[in-house]
Amino acid sequence: MKLPQLKQPEQLKSLSVDELTSLAVEIRQFLIEKLSVTGGHLASNLGVVELTLALHYCYNSPKDKFLFDVGHQAYVHKILTGRMDRFDTLRKYNGLCGFVKRTESEHDVWEAGHSSTSLSAAMGMALARDLKGEDNKVVAFIGDGALTGGMAFEALNHIGHAQKKLMVVLNDNEMSIAPNVGAMHNYLSKLRSDRHYLRAKDEVEGMLKKIPAIGGKLAKTVEKLKDSLKYMVVPGILFEELGFTYLGPVDGHDLQKLIDTFKQADNVDGPVFVHVLTTKGKGYTPAEADSYKWHGITPYKIESGQVLKSVGNPMYTDVFAQTLIELGERDSRVVAVTPAMPGGSGLFPFSKRFPDRMIDVGIAEQHAATMCAAMAMEGMKPVFAVYSTFMQRSYDQIVHDICRHNANVTFAIDRAGFVGADGETHQGVYDIAFMRHIPNMVLMMPKDENELRHMMFTALEYNDGPIAYRYPRVNGLGVPMDETLVSIPIGTWETVREGEGYAVLAVGPMVQVALEASELLKREGIQLQVVNARFLKPVDEDMLRALAKSRTNMIVLEEASEAGSLGSAILEFYASQHMFDTTVSLMGVPDRFIEHGSIKEQRAETELTASAVCEEIRKLIALHPYEYGKSSFPS
Amino acid sequence: MKLPQLKQPEQLKSLSVDELTSLAVEIRQFLIEKLSVTGGHLASNLGVVELTLALHYCYNSPKDKFLFDVGHQAYVHKILTGRMDRFDTLRKYNGLCGFVKRTESEHDVWEAGHSSTSLSAAMGMALARDLKGEDNKVVAFIGDGALTGGMAFEALNHIGHAQKKLMVVLNDNEMSIAPNVGAMHNYLSKLRSDRHYLRAKDEVEGMLKKIPAIGGKLAKTVEKLKDSLKYMVVPGILFEELGFTYLGPVDGHDLQKLIDTFKQADNVDGPVFVHVLTTKGKGYTPAEADSYKWHGITPYKIESGQVLKSVGNPMYTDVFAQTLIELGERDSRVVAVTPAMPGGSGLFPFSKRFPDRMIDVGIAEQHAATMCAAMAMEGMKPVFAVYSTFMQRSYDQIVHDICRHNANVTFAIDRAGFVGADGETHQGVYDIAFMRHIPNMVLMMPKDENELRHMMFTALEYNDGPIAYRYPRVNGLGVPMDETLVSIPIGTWETVREGEGYAVLAVGPMVQVALEASELLKREGIQLQVVNARFLKPVDEDMLRALAKSRTNMIVLEEASEAGSLGSAILEFYASQHMFDTTVSLMGVPDRFIEHGSIKEQRAETELTASAVCEEIRKLIALHPYEYGKSSFPS
Repeated sequence: MKLPQLKQPEQLKSLSVDELTSLAVEIRQFLIEKLSVTGGHLASNLGVVELTLALHYCYNSPKDKFLFDVGHQAYVHKILTGRMDRFDTLRKYNGLCGFVKRTESEHDVWEAGHSSTSLSAAMGMALARDLKGEDNKVVAFIGDGALTGGMAFEALNHIGHAQKKLMVVLNDNEMSIAPNVGAMHNYLSKLRSDRHYLRAKDEVEGMLKKIPAIGGKLAKTVEKLKDSLKYMVVPGILFEELGFTYLGPVDGHDLQKLIDTFKQADNVDGPVFVHVLTTKGKGYTPAEADSYKWHGITPYKIESGQVLKSVGNPMYTDVFAQTLIELGERDSRVVAVTPAMPGGSGLFPFSKRFPDRMIDVGIAEQHAATMCAAMAMEGMKPVFAVYSTFMQRSYDQIVHDICRHNANVTFAIDRAGFVGADGETHQGVYDIAFMRHIPNMVLMMPKDENELRHMMFTALEYNDGPIAYRYPRVNGLGVPMDETLVSIPIGTWETVREGEGYAVLAVGPMVQVALEASELLKREGIQLQVVNARFLKPVDEDMLRALAKSRTNMIVLEEASEAGSLGSAILEFYASQHMFDTTVSLMGVPDRFIEHGSIKEQRAETELTASAVCEEIRKLIALHPYEYGKSSFPS
Repeated sequence: MKLPQLKQPEQLKSLSVDELTSLAVEIRQFLIEKLSVTGGHLASNLGVVELTLALHYCYNSPKDKFLFDVGHQAYVHKILTGRMDRFDTLRKYNGLCGFVKRTESEHDVWEAGHSSTSLSAAMGMALARDLKGEDNKVVAFIGDGALTGGMAFEALNHIGHAQKKLMVVLNDNEMSIAPNVGAMHNYLSKLRSDRHYLRAKDEVEGMLKKIPAIGGKLAKTVEKLKDSLKYMVVPGILFEELGFTYLGPVDGHDLQKLIDTFKQADNVDGPVFVHVLTTKGKGYTPAEADSYKWHGITPYKIESGQVLKSVGNPMYTDVFAQTLIELGERDSRVVAVTPAMPGGSGLFPFSKRFPDRMIDVGIAEQHAATMCAAMAMEGMKPVFAVYSTFMQRSYDQIVHDICRHNANVTFAIDRAGFVGADGETHQGVYDIAFMRHIPNMVLMMPKDENELRHMMFTALEYNDGPIAYRYPRVNGLGVPMDETLVSIPIGTWETVREGEGYAVLAVGPMVQVALEASELLKREGIQLQVVNARFLKPVDEDMLRALAKSRTNMIVLEEASEAGSLGSAILEFYASQHMFDTTVSLMGVPDRFIEHGSIKEQRAETELTASAVCEEIRKLIALHPYEYGKSSFPS
């Protein structure tokens, strides 16, 4: 059978291992070709071709449940479940999702863009199965990086205790996205390679067989020793101690061995932990050579491995990365902390310059936040560089450990706003809403990359508690960069375009959108004021009072949840001041999850565009016209 | 030296072990006496008397940092650091805090009411110390229950890898608050008691010494075996595998052994894990006999151990507990899930009735939430019973796993609003603000315990996604209870007192406060309308439109963060409808952390009282009088 004939995974059952092996070759070729055009997560998927084939060969999806931890390693699963012909649309608007997606297929049972959730989900499915008296298999498929996330441990702890029948497949490629850190990683490395570990079981078994021949007074000691040793010298003792049957390590590119191991796992009654060794990027030389770079990749030339990058202004992330080094030079208290995203956050240059002052904690946002609190309390200036969406994992630690202690932690919140192709699990649209109500927090967003630099300096100079700057996953505007950094007074906004009667209070990249709208509205005789609302908390109370006093009709424009973000803050301020006669309209992200596509498409879908701003202004003019030359609000 | 002479921990240094032992007796006596009057966390503190003495004897606080994981086991530490004379005010308004509190003493370096933070904090302090070139010790003091929290594992993983010098003292009393669950607990039990483990090291060492005498062809095997075994058969292998030097288990009531162990730990260069066995309630027979009951206790009679309970209406928690059994009888899909709070959440009766359908996951809110999502997706109706403040730990899982999947998970949010004596780390005032902006969420709070029952039924009948009901840590009102449960239409409020011109939209217990205010205002000729705003999301749009149309001046009254909670939701709704002429005033919890005291005192401090409502109405009358008989708002 050739790959294009494969429509349903049950077709695999009748194939020989040789036939499966040749399918694997075709799948790799398909992935390399398709992704060279669309981009996507290449290296991780090349690593799991045989593993995914073996799972579908041994089990019966969708009756048996496959849960992929972080669904971007499910491309092969998508190919095997009838979605081959949609790969041209991968990660595009209305196209094939880059992650597992329940609406795409009955074979997709668990969606995840954040790591370390699959074990908890598997436990939930196993519990439900047993309560309903059903008998399907549950297989959680987790990478070694995701295993460092605390919730994965919480789940291991519970599963091992409850002894539910389920299988954890550890896809161990020695990477999360960046090379892994952490003691668990060291332990897995030992299991991979240390002869003491790999051979211990055989040796001890052999030894135990030989020892009985020894008589005399040693006999009793030997008996006790055997008793003590029998469950202590198996590989994977850590997982065995947690209540799992450990099988492995298995070569993840050897289909026969994988199939044999899964059959063996099937005979175990409680939880099984199958340790599979894979090579990220397997079968495509450039990706094997630099699997980090090839984790998520833009389009490339297949022959040379040359990656096609669009030229543009530096990303905000790049400006952050460069500026952080400057701040690190200036102030030795600056320490960068990342939860397994040193590359995505642009921290490699900083770590080269200050090896002791860049701390990668692994996928561990909770630990990172609390550790930052303690460092700050001891006089350091930790900068927690984190994506908006992953920061959600440390909400409690931000409340309980950072803000309650009023610790001088700086948050560098990357990927704030829409993120494009990664879609709904990665949108950075809630951080304003979940940070703003926490006491002691200061929260900023710059209108351009030059202002980001000043905000970073502002955060360094600020020593009165936690402070955050958030920035989007887009290119900067290419504005001139100031040499000298200055501290921006906390809670001050700036008018970037004067106007009268109507104003847009815009956040971050929305300032540009508002400026575009003001250009368009000029033709209609409207002088739209544009305010760079660069502090989300505290708000600029003086400016808000002045706007109310001048009876300006306002729109709050933000690429963030309309519920609970800056718009709410402004409404709350006016309510608290009993200023009831204001006109404030909100334009933010509506109350639903926004799927993958380009950022431009996501903005269009949610009406965060210049034309939508013009439309809203026209509505305000109809409903609540500003009367030029007349200011009736009492001073 | 007698206890009253002890003012600073350095005084301990000159004492003999016998003298320390007699101090321990005095400390126990002091705790038993004082807490019989004030109440507080007795059992856990009785368990750590010698341990705390030994720490202060061996180390130099405050130069050396002691970090208590969940600060309610720090009473002995408070006694040893000069705060004995304040114990009469324990957990009272403006009195001694029941947790570690930095403003109380330089010896208090880390505050925590949520568990599992101490290891991350210790790592932060160790990192800061090394970067500053200082040489103090860092000691994290953690219970076996707290060790199940995922962030503790994240920290172990990082510490073990980074090999920083710090000490983790595991206070193993086989309890978190409830008896522990989880594979880690099973493992610790083995370490405590299993002869195989306790003796393995000695046996193997003995064996290895004897084996060399054996010659012949066995010799080579023996050599290899020794090599394989030497690091595999130590107790605490799980912690050793994670990079720690494991010492123990040590009897936590034997001062000499504790002191010897800490000295030994001091000589280790990297991270040390000291496993200490203690007995919760040690030295007070009733507390030893039922340490669960005596974890946190109200005043009691010392001789009999009889606990003095104030008589009152059943708590909301009791009503929840009873009703959940009714729902469980009615519908076999109902499964209760608790993160180590089966008692506090009232779930023991449910677990007796339905042993398979009450799942205690340990201190693991992240895992619990995601597991619930998966159970719901497989057709169950999981009820995640969780305190508002601890639910903060699962914010990301609520967004990413529950709401994004639109899973039919029910949240039973206990301790919503002020919690009294537990104070600022436990206030349940943020859940509306952090839940409301998440798509698909439905959020309710009842005005009384009878309505709670109907809300629970409503949640059971609702199958369109996640739904939450929150209830306070207070007694119910003693209202009559309906036999027949009915489903409340989603998003509907009810007017509980008619009025005109002025209305309070009140949440939960604030409905009573508003009713009181309406009584008071009658004397001033004001007919205050009182609305039970029982849905926080979605809001009652019809009622809001009607209120606006009638030009009613409104106050939103909620025992929740004024930022981002129901008040914001209402302001946002009016803004979204372009209804700019409304008068809405907000009364909620201000933007700061509210300390311990009684709930009544906390409400008084934050002006969530009937008299404050009257005052606010009077302000509205002055600013924005309602004109009776005139309704100018266009229909």
